[in-house]
Amino acid sequence: MQVGKASVRFEKPPVIEAAASIAGKKEGEGPLGKMIDLVVEDAMFGTDNWEQAESTLQKKTALMAMEKGGLQKKDIRYLFAGDLLGQLIATSFGLMDLEVPLFGLYGACSTMGESLSLGAMTVQAGYAERVMAVASSHFATAEKQFRFPLAYGNQRPFSATWTVTGCGAVVLSAEGKKGMARVAGITTGRIVDMGATDSMNMGAAMAPSAYHTIRQNFEDMDVNETYYDKIITGDLGEIGRKILLDFMKKDGYDLEDVHMDCGMEIFDKESQDTHAGGSGCGCAAVTLCSMILPKIQDGTWKRVLFVPTGALLSTVSFNEGQSIPGIAHGVMLEHID
Amino acid sequence: MQVGKASVRFEKPPVIEAAASIAGKKEGEGPLGKMIDLVVEDAMFGTDNWEQAESTLQKKTALMAMEKGGLQKKDIRYLFAGDLLGQLIATSFGLMDLEVPLFGLYGACSTMGESLSLGAMTVQAGYAERVMAVASSHFATAEKQFRFPLAYGNQRPFSATWTVTGCGAVVLSAEGKKGMARVAGITTGRIVDMGATDSMNMGAAMAPSAYHTIRQNFEDMDVNETYYDKIITGDLGEIGRKILLDFMKKDGYDLEDVHMDCGMEIFDKESQDTHAGGSGCGCAAVTLCSMILPKIQDGTWKRVLFVPTGALLSTVSFNEGQSIPGIAHGVMLEHID
Repeated sequence: MQVGKASVRFEKPPVIEAAASIAGKKEGEGPLGKMIDLVVEDAMFGTDNWEQAESTLQKKTALMAMEKGGLQKKDIRYLFAGDLLGQLIATSFGLMDLEVPLFGLYGACSTMGESLSLGAMTVQAGYAERVMAVASSHFATAEKQFRFPLAYGNQRPFSATWTVTGCGAVVLSAEGKKGMARVAGITTGRIVDMGATDSMNMGAAMAPSAYHTIRQNFEDMDVNETYYDKIITGDLGEIGRKILLDFMKKDGYDLEDVHMDCGMEIFDKESQDTHAGGSGCGCAAVTLCSMILPKIQDGTWKRVLFVPTGALLSTVSFNEGQSIPGIAHGVMLEHID
Repeated sequence: MQVGKASVRFEKPPVIEAAASIAGKKEGEGPLGKMIDLVVEDAMFGTDNWEQAESTLQKKTALMAMEKGGLQKKDIRYLFAGDLLGQLIATSFGLMDLEVPLFGLYGACSTMGESLSLGAMTVQAGYAERVMAVASSHFATAEKQFRFPLAYGNQRPFSATWTVTGCGAVVLSAEGKKGMARVAGITTGRIVDMGATDSMNMGAAMAPSAYHTIRQNFEDMDVNETYYDKIITGDLGEIGRKILLDFMKKDGYDLEDVHMDCGMEIFDKESQDTHAGGSGCGCAAVTLCSMILPKIQDGTWKRVLFVPTGALLSTVSFNEGQSIPGIAHGVMLEHID
């Protein structure tokens, strides 16, 4: 069961029984627009402020995932959830009404990988028949917290990414259930810091952690890039992708064709002016639920290594001159025959 | 294994093999002073700012727990850790050098309960031989983030608690190992909001969640207050304790003698001017490692329900007029004969 240094291969792989995604107007206009379950034009989601908007987004997505699975609140044993905001307020206020035991997680934009990992571990161990993994982000709450208030209208360098307004929620269930994909194994990331200090170039901050987790997965599982139909990182964007591919190439792995990045899939760079790509917990979460899982379900991809990447950016540590460390959590997703 | 609505009783109870606590000068002058492994007089821990101080505190404590257990970094398979700061910067920067896979957690002051729970689940499932659970807080980083900069010298009402500068770290190992106590089971909390809105009275905000988790534990495990030698909450303080005891009394449970609160143990109210008591992730974590575990080890207490309590306070949601929800995670600790 325990494999190598940082991985688990599940003997009874948990099943992703249902998944739902909700996103904002801009995401709806992007390449994934038609695959996202619900696109909400009002960025305020009918509430009074951005934070309540994100909470509402998260709650609606969780409820939709249950509905798609034909499930009720009482069928979900644990929630594994998080967001980008201090004290996880989108999660706390969003999931409160579900009245389900909650493990609050913080992995920056890697949170969907962290929640899937812990959720799968919990289900296969028999602690729960069903759990839910949830992660969200909102452009306006994130910009307000991490960079500049929107009203400043500051210019964005080309290396900047665009925080996705969106949420993904996944129901993980015990082996044997019907579902979209199974979780074959996980590789858990550690914090990697190569000294990146530019908050407008998060791809560069995260690429080393993605590299580390993918290499660790190859080593622990005794595989290489040819084992997977796709290796999908969270939100490296164009610049981060280049760094990752360079690092891997030096070790003798060619990821040129097999690699995909959620941040580069969710927006159309030319028409949407999003520069390096999408980011935020919602980026990997929405891409997973709207595009990756359906493609695994229909057999387009048989084996996927899903690696959401997080930049542990804090305005406090950043202003104190610290670097931006990264973390990436790998989840092995497989087609169910 | 799965018991009732929100609990797990472990068939192969993981063992707390080693534990360490480090705290600041004020905590060292309190009633637990002599039991804390290391008291550091310099609140800056030799660094340039408060956040680095807390990171250093966390790193030193984790290394000390390993040392006390005769272990090296490579013996620890996963870290389950968190703190109170946005983006968990005390944890990210503190535990980076350990180079161990990390699950970052946010449960406010309940984090030690959350990390112990997930750590114990991971060990008993066989995903790891050994993991570490860590939680910290620092008076100066917390006041700066949540309330007023220290230099303002604002007055504190009597309902206010004092954030503990301290960290606790615990090594959880597979059944059969020698150790200080075993983890017999867990009861995972959900978010409970009864509308408390006073950030200077966190005990009142957290008491309902403690009540909920303790009641759930009684129900799931089919026990009552007489089953435990002690039921120990995290940082309710005097006011929160009164509320908890009142709530329990209405349901027919008398917790007057069996209840203890880490926040009321760690400081001497009369001489230390800490008002309602101690708080912060470090409060429950330091009390656990310095006092509770040794008393379980020597047999003073055979069965303890440890219930760290968290108030999900955020300055953003607070300033937007939202309430302060709470969460509490229960961990059943037992003497090893």
